[in-house]
Amino acid sequence: MSTVEVSAQAVDECINALARFGAYGDTGVWRTVYSPEWQAAQHELARWCREAGMDVRWDAVGNLWARLEGTEGGDSIVTGSHIDTQIPGGRFDGTLGVVGGFLALRELKRRFGPPRRTLELLSICEEESSRFPKSSFWGSRAITGDIAVEEFESQRDGDGVSIGEAMRSVGCDPGALASARRADIDVFLELHIEQGPVLEQAGVAVGVVTGVSGLHRYAVEVLGRSDHAGARPMDSRLDAMIGAAAIVLRVCETASAMGRPAVTTVGKLVVEPNYPSAVAEKVSFTIDVRHPDAEVLAELCRRHEVAVQEETSRRGLGVHVTKLLEVPPAPCDPALVELLTDVAAEQSVTAPLVASGAGHNLQELGKVARTGMVFVRTAERGDGPPVTAPDAAEGAGLLAAAMRRLAY
Amino acid sequence: MSTVEVSAQAVDECINALARFGAYGDTGVWRTVYSPEWQAAQHELARWCREAGMDVRWDAVGNLWARLEGTEGGDSIVTGSHIDTQIPGGRFDGTLGVVGGFLALRELKRRFGPPRRTLELLSICEEESSRFPKSSFWGSRAITGDIAVEEFESQRDGDGVSIGEAMRSVGCDPGALASARRADIDVFLELHIEQGPVLEQAGVAVGVVTGVSGLHRYAVEVLGRSDHAGARPMDSRLDAMIGAAAIVLRVCETASAMGRPAVTTVGKLVVEPNYPSAVAEKVSFTIDVRHPDAEVLAELCRRHEVAVQEETSRRGLGVHVTKLLEVPPAPCDPALVELLTDVAAEQSVTAPLVASGAGHNLQELGKVARTGMVFVRTAERGDGPPVTAPDAAEGAGLLAAAMRRLAY
Repeated sequence: MSTVEVSAQAVDECINALARFGAYGDTGVWRTVYSPEWQAAQHELARWCREAGMDVRWDAVGNLWARLEGTEGGDSIVTGSHIDTQIPGGRFDGTLGVVGGFLALRELKRRFGPPRRTLELLSICEEESSRFPKSSFWGSRAITGDIAVEEFESQRDGDGVSIGEAMRSVGCDPGALASARRADIDVFLELHIEQGPVLEQAGVAVGVVTGVSGLHRYAVEVLGRSDHAGARPMDSRLDAMIGAAAIVLRVCETASAMGRPAVTTVGKLVVEPNYPSAVAEKVSFTIDVRHPDAEVLAELCRRHEVAVQEETSRRGLGVHVTKLLEVPPAPCDPALVELLTDVAAEQSVTAPLVASGAGHNLQELGKVARTGMVFVRTAERGDGPPVTAPDAAEGAGLLAAAMRRLAY
Repeated sequence: MSTVEVSAQAVDECINALARFGAYGDTGVWRTVYSPEWQAAQHELARWCREAGMDVRWDAVGNLWARLEGTEGGDSIVTGSHIDTQIPGGRFDGTLGVVGGFLALRELKRRFGPPRRTLELLSICEEESSRFPKSSFWGSRAITGDIAVEEFESQRDGDGVSIGEAMRSVGCDPGALASARRADIDVFLELHIEQGPVLEQAGVAVGVVTGVSGLHRYAVEVLGRSDHAGARPMDSRLDAMIGAAAIVLRVCETASAMGRPAVTTVGKLVVEPNYPSAVAEKVSFTIDVRHPDAEVLAELCRRHEVAVQEETSRRGLGVHVTKLLEVPPAPCDPALVELLTDVAAEQSVTAPLVASGAGHNLQELGKVARTGMVFVRTAERGDGPPVTAPDAAEGAGLLAAAMRRLAY
């Protein structure tokens, strides 16, 4: 069986071509959903797909679908990712999955003709929530039926524009939302950059993702008493800063001691009144906890909750804890993990199993399809590009080989 | 020798009378320097002093001086405090020292006639920096010669009004600054509320202050690397939040272990980028360190500097440390501490020695005079007033007795 290859040069050309839409600084891209540059990039991609002989259509929310009809019909094998970016984002985040999927489908069609089962490329309109802060997975949610009609009005960007208005400005039709739903997707495969150091540290270009970590997020308020920093002795203070610091250290050390892939992060913290000469009255912070195994995640959260209670009560401090998020782990389909591992071995590519700590569209699409994911190595910050074209091409090659097995 | 008493009723009446100028809410006062309400309060006080037979004058910056000329002349024995307030402040902070000093002088004159040595009451125009943020000890600095002429223009309030303009608006003359200087003050005694819990915890109404703690203040920036809270494993993070938390805990525990009167406070802390899902790149905070003994203070600071370096370097974090303030301890004159202790014993008043962690005018006036200070008990927050008139009168009585010893 001959291997399927995606050329590094083709990846490079496509990534650079799309990076021109919303180019920001030397290497960045600023391309939020429903912006003119986003619309132009989606249309450029549609042009490529048509030229490659795919049937192209838009759904109601602006997801782009490009189809190679299967001779036997049935549910689709879909691949893709998102082309909206952070503000600004890099040229590979999301886009690589769309470009890699496009090149894989084009190559499969060129070499093997029409597939037995239907293959589709999906360029998802939104993932980053960078324009509409609460819109995460908007494009995928349209497909799974998880958008509430009220959101067209309630979701607003920084200028007060509703997501419904923004959609209409680029020719989308909020009223046709129901038509975006799909119940005929068998498999969704996503190629994405890792955005972490695991593959680089392991010295490999690609990895097969076992699933996306569950995410629990807490808002904690430690409540003390503000006092004069000079007049109040240490022994009679109720210093919210000390309580918060003890919690930060303890929860982070707990996750560290548990080892990979457990992660706990206190990334946001606000002090009141926040004066150099005033003992802190209130310190508010988030605790972000992630693990791919639901039971281990629950245990980690339990230990954190104990830490918050113990570190505050032993200091006589008050505390309010609120759960902000409780997203369960989204494991990939074991058969697809095995398939991706098999085709990697077949192509003599080392592709270890890795967990994804970051969220991805397959979490949402996993509600209606079996999912699989390939990660491409991301370099630590340095002078070079964060992702190399040969690494990206190796990932796209895995995707192509897996789709060949599934669809031919 | 008969004791000198100041009546609680008189303290109460004077405090309440002055509290009407800038009254704020039920019990607060909002009376910033050079405001109409501040001017009115100073003039009311001047009226009382004239009625009590004192010679009243204003200096160039608006300090009010009320004098009982000594029969033998020579350098003056001065007492007083400030009547400007925090925004808002309480009715006792500063004002008690002015009222107590006024009542002490009035009582001494009534009972014993003209003093042998000159006695003066000083109502200092400014201490709180509540209107002009960098103007601290403005009135005292005019007396010691520590005001730079540029400050009349450079010191601005929140509305952009320069302190020079504000002075002229209430009839003061910036051009006459040099005339405010005094080189003929032998002793400055200040009565002030403690603003801390030491006297209350000891169950006593008054204390004799041994000195004002020195204050060193650092600005610390802990520098890490921002990473995705999901994608970056704990073992390869450079999390500035963890480094900052470790420093907060360690410096506060070091001061606690050293015991009273050592205090260390991290009251202000700011995180960047401050997102729940981003590992902190930079955490900036202040460390405020106070102790009345210069050598102990230096040792405490040294340990904090070691802690900052160790906790960051062991985590691979960068760090910038800047010294923002380095105010040396201002010990009270040992002979005056002894005198105040003696007169307390004479009046059967328990007056333990206490250190002042908060700053006071005597730090500045200590440059030109021997200083002594009496603290009055401040209650923990509750339903009652923070200071009672009998406590305040006991403090004013000590002041009067000490001045009698010095001036008669």
